[in-house]
Amino acid sequence: MLVQRRGDNAHEMSFYGGDGVLQVERYFATTTALPAQVMLYDFEPGTAEGEHLHLEGHDDSCSATSSDEMYVVTAGEVVMTVDGERTVLKAGDSAYAPAGSLHGVANESDSPARLVLVYGEPKLREPTSNGK
Amino acid sequence: MLVQRRGDNAHEMSFYGGDGVLQVERYFATTTALPAQVMLYDFEPGTAEGEHLHLEGHDDSCSATSSDEMYVVTAGEVVMTVDGERTVLKAGDSAYAPAGSLHGVANESDSPARLVLVYGEPKLREPTSNGK
Repeated sequence: MLVQRRGDNAHEMSFYGGDGVLQVERYFATTTALPAQVMLYDFEPGTAEGEHLHLEGHDDSCSATSSDEMYVVTAGEVVMTVDGERTVLKAGDSAYAPAGSLHGVANESDSPARLVLVYGEPKLREPTSNGK
Repeated sequence: MLVQRRGDNAHEMSFYGGDGVLQVERYFATTTALPAQVMLYDFEPGTAEGEHLHLEGHDDSCSATSSDEMYVVTAGEVVMTVDGERTVLKAGDSAYAPAGSLHGVANESDSPARLVLVYGEPKLREPTSNGK
C-alpha cells in the first residue's frame, strides 16, 4: 500500500515574509499522478503565511506557473486574506484563491489551527459543443 | 472572496455498502478549476466507507472515469484497506489509492476521525523529449 507517515516529508517553513514558522507536510509530492499537490499546514497562534500570488509571467509571482489554491480548515480558525478582503475561516470552511489573486492566511487566535491546502494549475475551460 | 462555509454542501452519505453514515462536505464542487475534487469526511466510531474502485471500463467501477484518490487523516485514526492490505492511519498520515485499486476506509476506534479526500483523473505521463 502507498502510505506516507506523519514526518516523512515534514518541513518547518516561513513563507512569503509571514510571521513565525509553519509546520508543513507534503503528501506524495514526487509520486502522485493527481494533477494537484496536497499539503498539511499546522499554524501555531501568531504564525502566518505571507501574502503572495501564483501567476505565470507576473513579476511578483512566487512560482513559474499559475496555480489555483484551495484552503480547507480542519481544526481551529484562521484569517484568510484575498485581494485585500479578510474573512475568518473555521473548521469545515474553505477559501479558494484563483491564480493571480494576492492571498495569505494567518492564525490570529489563541489556539493551534490545521489546514489542508490543495493547489495546481487551473484546467482549461471545456470547449463548447460547437467548438466556440 | 470565494468562501464556502461548513454545511454549504454537506451530505450524510453511505458509500459502497459501508457501515453507518458519513458526514461529507464537498468543496467548490462545481466551480473549482483545479483538476481534482476535495471532500471532508467525518467518521463516527463504527462507520466505514465500503471497498470500491474507480477504473474506466471496469465492470465493478463505481465511476465512469478513472480516479486516483489521496486520503489525508487530519484527526483521529482510521483503518485503510487497499487491495486486501490493512493499515492504521493516524493524524498526519496519508494513503494513496491508484485508479483500479480496491480500497476503503473505516473508523474502528472509539473516537471520531476526520479526513480530507482529494481525487481526480491521473495525469498522463509526460512525453519524453524524443516523443517516445
